[in-house]
Amino acid sequence: MTTLPDASFLFRLADAAARETLPRFRTALSVDSKPKEGFTFDPVTEADREAEKAIRALIEAEYPSHAILGEEFGLSGSGDHLWVIDPVDGTRPFICGVPVWGTLIGLTVRGRAELGIMSQPYTGERFWATGEGAFGDGPLGRKRLQVRDVGELAGATLFSSAPELFRGPLKARFQSLVDQVRLTRFGADCYAFAMLAAGHVDICVEPGLQPYDIVALTPIVERAGGVVTTFSGDRPENGGDVVAAATPALHEAALRILNG
Amino acid sequence: MTTLPDASFLFRLADAAARETLPRFRTALSVDSKPKEGFTFDPVTEADREAEKAIRALIEAEYPSHAILGEEFGLSGSGDHLWVIDPVDGTRPFICGVPVWGTLIGLTVRGRAELGIMSQPYTGERFWATGEGAFGDGPLGRKRLQVRDVGELAGATLFSSAPELFRGPLKARFQSLVDQVRLTRFGADCYAFAMLAAGHVDICVEPGLQPYDIVALTPIVERAGGVVTTFSGDRPENGGDVVAAATPALHEAALRILNG
Repeated sequence: MTTLPDASFLFRLADAAARETLPRFRTALSVDSKPKEGFTFDPVTEADREAEKAIRALIEAEYPSHAILGEEFGLSGSGDHLWVIDPVDGTRPFICGVPVWGTLIGLTVRGRAELGIMSQPYTGERFWATGEGAFGDGPLGRKRLQVRDVGELAGATLFSSAPELFRGPLKARFQSLVDQVRLTRFGADCYAFAMLAAGHVDICVEPGLQPYDIVALTPIVERAGGVVTTFSGDRPENGGDVVAAATPALHEAALRILNG
Repeated sequence: MTTLPDASFLFRLADAAARETLPRFRTALSVDSKPKEGFTFDPVTEADREAEKAIRALIEAEYPSHAILGEEFGLSGSGDHLWVIDPVDGTRPFICGVPVWGTLIGLTVRGRAELGIMSQPYTGERFWATGEGAFGDGPLGRKRLQVRDVGELAGATLFSSAPELFRGPLKARFQSLVDQVRLTRFGADCYAFAMLAAGHVDICVEPGLQPYDIVALTPIVERAGGVVTTFSGDRPENGGDVVAAATPALHEAALRILNG
């Protein structure tokens, strides 16, 4: 069995990304002039591209046999080991100045997410998972991540990045879930998954994810004791409509409602 | 004319509040057992109460003749000078672990907001306004706050804390505003007003505010060049349905749509 990279390599990747993202955060005083649809669904920033280049360079130097899939530059290489990168997940909060975006870097081995880090350089936070478990570090210190158990949906806090992601038949089903939980909040993107792993949020629902939106977060949620799958209950590494939950009971209850 | 307190006094108040709020942030691993309605609309935390006590003690020591209105302990005193305090604005992000809540402390003189500070101790950020202007400080350094001008609604970014705040006839009018702006985001509470003052957000709409939700933010928005009023165009110090905008043109356009 191949030895997997340890947390210190994940931190090097996150640091390299932060050197590209943080100096560009809150520097644009007006948004650029892309058409509305393009802007809303795939904002591309310089931070995104430069951070992905920096992450790729370190991986290629250290693990030249590993493949890389990034949001900005696609797939390179092939093999059992695949790094999956979203240099700026939450481009919309990024352009609004709100520090709930993150750099997502995950590693899959034969399709399964084994390592991951979510880095928020403005707050100085990192959430990561290795074989040793899931951990968080930031202004309040380092701790092992552990989901909470609020029991039923009626006690749960639900997050999603935006209400307009729920369209067609899913709109009413999502509203039904909103009606059954204690509190629903929007707008935290990958940060909400980190808060789920840390025991402050119970369910995250995100339709239409790409692999690079979820691979890094998957082991963080799982090794904190949570569950993350597609709406059909499959492994989430290929993206799609994704639900993460703090407990199997909440996960099952949310899936039942979202599948109508 | 009485000399108003300077920024250093606002910082002392914010520091005192931070000593009560920050150690309690992310410490609760489950929400307490209030009924759903009470929880959703007025979560009261220990952080709220202790921070307000700390702020009140400093004001009472330094400005014993000034009145104080706080979210937790109501009105005390009377006179031309009234401090208006929300020790934890954004209790819902606070309990979810998301650092977009803030301590709001404002001072009105004969009903008009003259000074204000929004402090986010987890990120180490402060946004404040005195007679000298509006300023921000945090991980990226100190700067004067200045709104941006994106021109028309079609270029604007809109924020509100939650979609469920828009009910009855207002629901469709808010949706019409959402349809006309470039990007709508939820979930940042007072933090979105700070981002408006800093030039990263263009419009904030919040129905049903209390005075302590808006007094501190008002001079920050105004001295950064923005406009903040009720939906009827009145001064915002008494709360109500509030719109802040980066420019008079955006403010007028938003009001026209929200008033139907």
